[in-house]
Amino acid sequence: MKDDFFEQLAREHVRGLHAYTPGLQPKGINWVKLNTNENPYPPSPRVAEAIEREVGDGLRLYPDPRSSRLRDAVAAHHGLADGSQVCIGNGSDDILNLLTRAFCSGEKAAAFTFPSYSLYPVLIAIENGRMIEVEFDRSMRLDVDRLAATEANILFFTSPNAPTGVGFGLDEIEALLQTFAGLVVVDEAYADFAETDATPLLAQYPNLCITRSFSKSYGLAGLRVGYLLGHSRLIEVVDRVRDSYNVNRLSQAGALAAIEDQPYFRAVVGKIKETRDFYRSEFEQRGWFTYPSQTNFLLTEPRDRNGRAGKEVAQSLYDFLVGHKILVRYFPSHDLTCNFLRISVGSEPEMLTLAETIDRWLQDA
Amino acid sequence: MKDDFFEQLAREHVRGLHAYTPGLQPKGINWVKLNTNENPYPPSPRVAEAIEREVGDGLRLYPDPRSSRLRDAVAAHHGLADGSQVCIGNGSDDILNLLTRAFCSGEKAAAFTFPSYSLYPVLIAIENGRMIEVEFDRSMRLDVDRLAATEANILFFTSPNAPTGVGFGLDEIEALLQTFAGLVVVDEAYADFAETDATPLLAQYPNLCITRSFSKSYGLAGLRVGYLLGHSRLIEVVDRVRDSYNVNRLSQAGALAAIEDQPYFRAVVGKIKETRDFYRSEFEQRGWFTYPSQTNFLLTEPRDRNGRAGKEVAQSLYDFLVGHKILVRYFPSHDLTCNFLRISVGSEPEMLTLAETIDRWLQDA
Repeated sequence: MKDDFFEQLAREHVRGLHAYTPGLQPKGINWVKLNTNENPYPPSPRVAEAIEREVGDGLRLYPDPRSSRLRDAVAAHHGLADGSQVCIGNGSDDILNLLTRAFCSGEKAAAFTFPSYSLYPVLIAIENGRMIEVEFDRSMRLDVDRLAATEANILFFTSPNAPTGVGFGLDEIEALLQTFAGLVVVDEAYADFAETDATPLLAQYPNLCITRSFSKSYGLAGLRVGYLLGHSRLIEVVDRVRDSYNVNRLSQAGALAAIEDQPYFRAVVGKIKETRDFYRSEFEQRGWFTYPSQTNFLLTEPRDRNGRAGKEVAQSLYDFLVGHKILVRYFPSHDLTCNFLRISVGSEPEMLTLAETIDRWLQDA
Repeated sequence: MKDDFFEQLAREHVRGLHAYTPGLQPKGINWVKLNTNENPYPPSPRVAEAIEREVGDGLRLYPDPRSSRLRDAVAAHHGLADGSQVCIGNGSDDILNLLTRAFCSGEKAAAFTFPSYSLYPVLIAIENGRMIEVEFDRSMRLDVDRLAATEANILFFTSPNAPTGVGFGLDEIEALLQTFAGLVVVDEAYADFAETDATPLLAQYPNLCITRSFSKSYGLAGLRVGYLLGHSRLIEVVDRVRDSYNVNRLSQAGALAAIEDQPYFRAVVGKIKETRDFYRSEFEQRGWFTYPSQTNFLLTEPRDRNGRAGKEVAQSLYDFLVGHKILVRYFPSHDLTCNFLRISVGSEPEMLTLAETIDRWLQDA
């Protein structure tokens, strides 16, 4: 076999692909893990009960291919008529992938904002699609005119945005829906932590669809469930390219139990928002510019004890934290993010450990 | 919005796609379900224990993106050096999908045998790939020369085959590997029920890869886990197009527990093979031609009390069974299958119910 046997067999564009780089999942224990926006609190206790019941009923049978009960529950949760406006994915990544496969190609361009979720360009590249990146400036506001001018077939952005945490106004999103002719995908992975979301616009704008995730607000990153809200005819198209058994029995049962326990959900989301707002003002009191966050993380620009900010300072704090078994996320490769660290909102004790470790860094560094 | 708004936005080939049709999953109880080749026995009790432990540890954290422990366990099970020769999928359907995305396009043809697993053409159509169907004749042997003559970039076939149950010889597969220049994907979803499998050929033929499933022999259809065995460089290519968190925590933990409990696995597979062989001779004693099966199902050609076989007879028995809450699979749309029913091997009591119901049909029909 020649060394490049598989590269030659593979499609040309696959040869140059780079997989998405997920945040580090440390293998040891005792890490304070604030790097992948997981929920610091466990999911509703009803989830474990539902999974146990489902295991008892038997894993030997295939799951419901349409996740019908979950579609209906999601529709009811969002006040939609019925499950025909919902598609369930193996994580919202699955949904983003299906949308890319159906609506993006070498001719049909996909646009996305940057910095945002870095999976969008990875998915477009896998599809060998025409890719249009629209960069934010430091204001991190949605530039409706530039986005509409792309004339892309499909447009992805995260709202509230990652990694900034900034929320966009409904008026901005509505203006975009009125001027952009293609399909607008609003990735609302973090919307449960925000003051508003785009779901009220669904009834009026058929070119709007929304992705959501159970990974963050529902504390179910380990279960891989996300969903799409949109016009029933859009859902039909997406179902055509979907793997028929994409969501397994335990994920369907667990997510259903989670969405049905709204009191627990609201309590957890409330706690995280309180902690987030408290630590944002803590960072601001240190003189660290921190974007106002509508998510479960904070993007902050650390300053050393001499008041200096910058790439070296951010890297220095990142390394110091790793040395003390605290993981946060650092995106050094772009001007708009390289001075910042993205810190997931942890539990109170975790955030206290973080604050104390920052104090030590300020003394040492 | 115009009626065809989404169809116009979608890629041209997506407009004409038809999703894969999974076997019926009846919602009521008391069905004898012999239509989707599920295992009639529950998975190893260790699976439930492992899932319970994993739920206890927390679902709030993302899974291991590479399913590393499961890769290693699968490699060890098949006597491969290490996990670098293994990729884990959200069911083997996920793996088949990834292989299609990486190795099939409008220029790079994918060939597949027919009748076989009807997902292959669906996946190729989603990819808008060049599709070459190679039909079996009634002997259902692998036609090595015709397959090699396709000069396809990638070739899919099921071994032992579905829906016939016929096993192919290692010599036939080896001859194919020597003459076919592209990638050969042997879908061994049913190989645990067979006398031989193609894994011994992996070391010698880098153009061979093998897909396997936990759905049938391990009784875990509800968990969605399958895997790919192949050259480590092939695995690297597949990982580039794979969703980074494609297999959730519970599926990783459950499948690991299942593959580690080989005594249980062997006992279950042994029981199913015994039942299969007993009912094959029962069918043959009725004068029904039944392919020798190396799988957990039987493809049999029913005859009515006047000894007639044919499409109407098969349909009549199918309808009679449904009327008595017994589901089997019927493929009426092709000459090679329309006289037959595919019957998954159930538990002894289920098969007894089937046999008694067939007797009643013979009296009534």
